[in-house]
Amino acid sequence: MTAPDWIAVDWGTTRLRAWAMRGTDPLAEARAETGMNAIPPGGFEAALLDLVGGWSLAPATPVIACGMVGARQGWVEAPYRPVPCPPLGGVPVAAHCDDPRLNVRIVPGLSQSAPPDVMRGEETQIAGFLSLNPDFDGVVCLPGSHCKWVHVSAGEVVSFQTAMTGELFAALSRHTVLRHSIGDGWDDDAFGDAVSTALSRPERLATGLFGLRAEGLLDGLAPASATARLSGLLIGMELAATRAYWLGRAVALIGAPDLCRHYAAALQAQGVTPMLTRADTTTLAGLAAARRTVAP
Amino acid sequence: MTAPDWIAVDWGTTRLRAWAMRGTDPLAEARAETGMNAIPPGGFEAALLDLVGGWSLAPATPVIACGMVGARQGWVEAPYRPVPCPPLGGVPVAAHCDDPRLNVRIVPGLSQSAPPDVMRGEETQIAGFLSLNPDFDGVVCLPGSHCKWVHVSAGEVVSFQTAMTGELFAALSRHTVLRHSIGDGWDDDAFGDAVSTALSRPERLATGLFGLRAEGLLDGLAPASATARLSGLLIGMELAATRAYWLGRAVALIGAPDLCRHYAAALQAQGVTPMLTRADTTTLAGLAAARRTVAP
Repeated sequence: MTAPDWIAVDWGTTRLRAWAMRGTDPLAEARAETGMNAIPPGGFEAALLDLVGGWSLAPATPVIACGMVGARQGWVEAPYRPVPCPPLGGVPVAAHCDDPRLNVRIVPGLSQSAPPDVMRGEETQIAGFLSLNPDFDGVVCLPGSHCKWVHVSAGEVVSFQTAMTGELFAALSRHTVLRHSIGDGWDDDAFGDAVSTALSRPERLATGLFGLRAEGLLDGLAPASATARLSGLLIGMELAATRAYWLGRAVALIGAPDLCRHYAAALQAQGVTPMLTRADTTTLAGLAAARRTVAP
Repeated sequence: MTAPDWIAVDWGTTRLRAWAMRGTDPLAEARAETGMNAIPPGGFEAALLDLVGGWSLAPATPVIACGMVGARQGWVEAPYRPVPCPPLGGVPVAAHCDDPRLNVRIVPGLSQSAPPDVMRGEETQIAGFLSLNPDFDGVVCLPGSHCKWVHVSAGEVVSFQTAMTGELFAALSRHTVLRHSIGDGWDDDAFGDAVSTALSRPERLATGLFGLRAEGLLDGLAPASATARLSGLLIGMELAATRAYWLGRAVALIGAPDLCRHYAAALQAQGVTPMLTRADTTTLAGLAAARRTVAP
């Protein structure tokens, strides 16, 4: 492999990904399960070298990282920047390295005071999305464990709101009696009906959850239908809570393709046709934009 | 200890309790963590003897059990009885025992076809409550992992609805990022405000969950306040979903005293003053009522 001129890093709570970059082109990619939660104190440099130490690295190769690696419990705290502000600003925060081949910088997250909210990592994806769509004005939605709804206008993040829908789905499907009810597969009709129910009557979530279990016991509700209905109840409640974000605005979805398809279907039933972008694309474009602030 | 003339057993998913009874009076009580989930196939009799085998038992001592022990995966399946019906009916289902000292009978649960719902164990508590309050007409609410709202009229269970609020609270507070936010203690104002918010805007749960985390990070939200607010959001959403049950009806709460106090406070803010009864009292009274169907 030719020597990368920089390294892009997406370092979240549960996983670490790195790309050897030449300009905006990835030469190689590596990933590990060593997310922030798995790193002992002082262990960030070693975990990164485990992943990229085999690459041919010039001295002081710039490494641009985003995500929870900049949290208080991360490699170095990159303090939140308060909105409204552009998704990236200034030079990312330097992290100390013993290895002279590395020059690590961490992109700060964003915070909002009222209502209180925070993001780390999504600001980089939004910057990447804006570098690809510089005139975008509307709402960027980033589905995932902590789904972010972000109002973007004139190149700035105006406001945002988080719904921990993905984490709620995981907790319900792994750590409650619903683990007996849900399973592989999908059911578009069950999903659509549940979204519609939760959008108009969000309180139905309270009784709809055990309803999945009871319908499985009494009527043999299929696991695929139960999965889709659970997802639909949660996404429908999220859409009810974030209506002020998506109603009447241009909406862009960034995330894993399967998950984005579900959000797109739910939004389309409400008359909103979102544009879809892969998370990888925006992450790399955003880290490349952050890299230009270090060595333009 | 004098010999009990029967044994009362409450055998749920996660725990087993037994009382040595003389008439309606408990002579002794024993408990173990060997709930249904912890019993290997064929292991129910051994688990029960571990707990009560040391008591002085006459041959064929009646043992009356309620709860998940009557589920398909339990000792013997006690098929659901469909509502509307009295909470108890007929002779409980016999379970095979090798030990000649035991004559085990299991109280069947109740089912409802539309909307699908099931209960196992609460029917016995309702029977006990009705034996103590024979003229009650209204709604019995049994807070817990799977909170039941039960419309009782003329000695029958007319309809019921389950909200898995307790299990949802446990999954959120143990298996999501909220485990960093919540802690010991309580905050009545935070609870009341959250109940009110969720009753009027139940969709706020979707964004209110991560809001607890963000407010902890940015504004130092106290763990006791976060706990009370999480509980209030969930109970408020439950009250919004079960309004048809509690609005304008006599309401009786049966359960753990601390939890019942929270439900009572939430209902009182809506102009409903429930009566409170301890779960132990109704369970024993209900098992005693079931015992009279075996040997009146």
